[in-house]
Amino acid sequence: MPAYLAQHQNRFLEELIEWLRIPSVSADPKFHGDVLRAADFIKERLLEAGATLVEICPTAGNPIVYGEYMAGPDRPTVLVYGHYDVQPADPYELWTSPPFEPVIKDEKIYARGACDDKGQVYMHVKALEMMLRDGGLGAPCNIKFMFEGEEEIGSDNLGIFVKANKEKLKADVILISDTGILANDVPSIEVGLRGLSYHEVEVTGPNRDLHSGLYGGAVMNPINALCDMISSLHDENRHITIPGFYDNVAELSAAERAELAQAPFSEEEFEQSIGLPTAAGEAGYTTPERTSIRPTLDVNGIWGGYTGEGAKTVIASKAYAKISMRLVPHQTSDEITALFQKHFESIAPAGVTVKVTPHHGGEPVVTPTDSVAYRAAAKALEITFGKKPVPTRGGGSIPIVAMFKTELGLDSVLLGFGLDSDAIHSPNEHFGVFNFLKGIETIPEFYREYAAASN
Amino acid sequence: MPAYLAQHQNRFLEELIEWLRIPSVSADPKFHGDVLRAADFIKERLLEAGATLVEICPTAGNPIVYGEYMAGPDRPTVLVYGHYDVQPADPYELWTSPPFEPVIKDEKIYARGACDDKGQVYMHVKALEMMLRDGGLGAPCNIKFMFEGEEEIGSDNLGIFVKANKEKLKADVILISDTGILANDVPSIEVGLRGLSYHEVEVTGPNRDLHSGLYGGAVMNPINALCDMISSLHDENRHITIPGFYDNVAELSAAERAELAQAPFSEEEFEQSIGLPTAAGEAGYTTPERTSIRPTLDVNGIWGGYTGEGAKTVIASKAYAKISMRLVPHQTSDEITALFQKHFESIAPAGVTVKVTPHHGGEPVVTPTDSVAYRAAAKALEITFGKKPVPTRGGGSIPIVAMFKTELGLDSVLLGFGLDSDAIHSPNEHFGVFNFLKGIETIPEFYREYAAASN
Repeated sequence: MPAYLAQHQNRFLEELIEWLRIPSVSADPKFHGDVLRAADFIKERLLEAGATLVEICPTAGNPIVYGEYMAGPDRPTVLVYGHYDVQPADPYELWTSPPFEPVIKDEKIYARGACDDKGQVYMHVKALEMMLRDGGLGAPCNIKFMFEGEEEIGSDNLGIFVKANKEKLKADVILISDTGILANDVPSIEVGLRGLSYHEVEVTGPNRDLHSGLYGGAVMNPINALCDMISSLHDENRHITIPGFYDNVAELSAAERAELAQAPFSEEEFEQSIGLPTAAGEAGYTTPERTSIRPTLDVNGIWGGYTGEGAKTVIASKAYAKISMRLVPHQTSDEITALFQKHFESIAPAGVTVKVTPHHGGEPVVTPTDSVAYRAAAKALEITFGKKPVPTRGGGSIPIVAMFKTELGLDSVLLGFGLDSDAIHSPNEHFGVFNFLKGIETIPEFYREYAAASN
Repeated sequence: MPAYLAQHQNRFLEELIEWLRIPSVSADPKFHGDVLRAADFIKERLLEAGATLVEICPTAGNPIVYGEYMAGPDRPTVLVYGHYDVQPADPYELWTSPPFEPVIKDEKIYARGACDDKGQVYMHVKALEMMLRDGGLGAPCNIKFMFEGEEEIGSDNLGIFVKANKEKLKADVILISDTGILANDVPSIEVGLRGLSYHEVEVTGPNRDLHSGLYGGAVMNPINALCDMISSLHDENRHITIPGFYDNVAELSAAERAELAQAPFSEEEFEQSIGLPTAAGEAGYTTPERTSIRPTLDVNGIWGGYTGEGAKTVIASKAYAKISMRLVPHQTSDEITALFQKHFESIAPAGVTVKVTPHHGGEPVVTPTDSVAYRAAAKALEITFGKKPVPTRGGGSIPIVAMFKTELGLDSVLLGFGLDSDAIHSPNEHFGVFNFLKGIETIPEFYREYAAASN
């Protein structure tokens, strides 16, 4: 560990904890003031770290924090992207410590956003400080920072901002820390991400809640109908039944699948880590394939009727679900959104009507492994972990990666430091102190390698 | 309308409204104090009406209000049963006026419990007052009142109370007003009721909520699994697929079905009244048959995952549903509860576990139409409505009817005055002022006819 990092690590953690105390939940309007406070906080920290310009850029939604440190016109420019908004924290009762009262336990920081993505954004701020402060060698690249506040709700305004600010955002590559490594002794870099198509569906039966004794049997119960419709979306092999869904899926060759299979993976450890007797999924694919190269469909939430204590004999007027699909190359979010909407509306049984409201989507991407930036990232990880990183294809979505390619013509390098077990989007999200410090240590190595290879 | 009723009807309505203000929701512990207040209220009103003895009888749960008016040892004895507890009122936002702030609009009393069952219980109290007060002819029968506070949560303690008080409850017949008539110009008496088997199911997948991107495709999502399981409970003809479910169902003869089909019913009006393009249900049966002589299965509530605003990409650890079945002769609630539990646990797909918790049950009944009491009730309705009543088989459950038969050896007469459109168990429950007053007018006629026929 560099001397500066060793000396200041406790302060870095305390600062991150202060930031994590702000409940910057973008999905819920009641946290809007906190979202703005979280943006102000990171603006101030960027200035303290040595950024020469930091702006809070208003959008139609939450603001984008833009910052710069310019090393010189002859240096390559790296645009760092991250987000300061976080997922909703409920169900609160499942957290062992409150989500917005961060604590360090067993060398891990527990808080909503600890890993996704405030902890990883904060690594970049502290890496800048370390490069510029006493004993630092200076930043070998021009660095631009763009931290948004709407990643968890679809990044609707980021695209507009990027389109309107192409000159300002001019760079050679994009650097993102919003992913993970396979294990603390198995460094890795994500080179593929799944896309997303997310919908809310509403099934309406009778015009009011009915007594299930007086009416039961004579009306299509909207909850039963919703269950029938959802159930029909998979066949017995867990293939998705939406017509045309697989038409554009890139099938990997046996050789490509064999290469991916070299990443270390234990089915048993996977099952144990989530407390399951058995993993399950689409027939014909391994567990790592099911979460990377295959598209999926999951119900993310469902509700309807009486959900309180005790028994109520009611037939609900309405039932709801949130349903999302993860997409792979060369599916597009627009295509799948249209197919889902059309199909789901078509399978409504007699006696109910259905409304499908698409939320937001994102495109699947595969990033190149033969670029200067990828090789610089791989080298940086090899220096700090003492081991060559493995390229992996992740199951999550960072929809803006595809958008950056389209709008700015730039590839992204996904230099993330989380772990699968960090419980992001779940109760008890956490981020290893090791991972946070390793990120701060690795990021300057990336700039060094990238600047050297670019000259 | 009798002169006394015409003179005092406004006060009767005001008193009922005062009672309806008390939110005596038995399913939710936070209303426990209100449940006790509702019991005290009806005790005081019974005493004022002329009951010679009224007791609040404690049970392990909510108390039973017991009252008596003894006309003489030579008179027949009628045991009036009703309940002072009400269904939960949520969803509150769908009420046009708050459920516990009763209002009279368009000649209807709007409030939770207006019809089920406080309004109907209050008819009996005011009928007693009318018989005993100035100008009244006195009560021709001994009348015992038994009003419980746990009907909406399964009447668990009523059976214990009845078993322990057989001498006190000795009577010739039981009179219950907790059902309805076909229309205000089509008086009817229910002679059949469905039974009930009610369950809460819990499906557990991973040991914590997971990110649907990182894990989607590799684990059985408990919400999807629950939908699959629920969907499999009906086949394409809406027959229930639980093995053995129909084994004991009494099939009606063509002649019996033809007789039932004589009750006036309009499919179109039924559909219009609940805002549906089409009724739906088990193949091979009419809408009235589907709600009376056939058993059914409905999901009364479902929940799991993220149900807040916006999008959250989560795979929930758990999913829940409340599932109930309406039973017909000669199914029993114990038999069906055991069949459901065994079957539902057996259909859990690999990757999830399932827990079934039975709530409460009730037995289906058919009451005799050739008894003295039934004929007295029919005569009373004919006097006050000017029309012979139609015998009908209802879809709801009054589980205690079967219990009274077993424990006390008594038949019940279901002399109810509600309408199907009263929205009991739903938002905007109401009870017609006409129906409330007609009940008060009809009940003394029943006593008169019953006493006359018994001598």
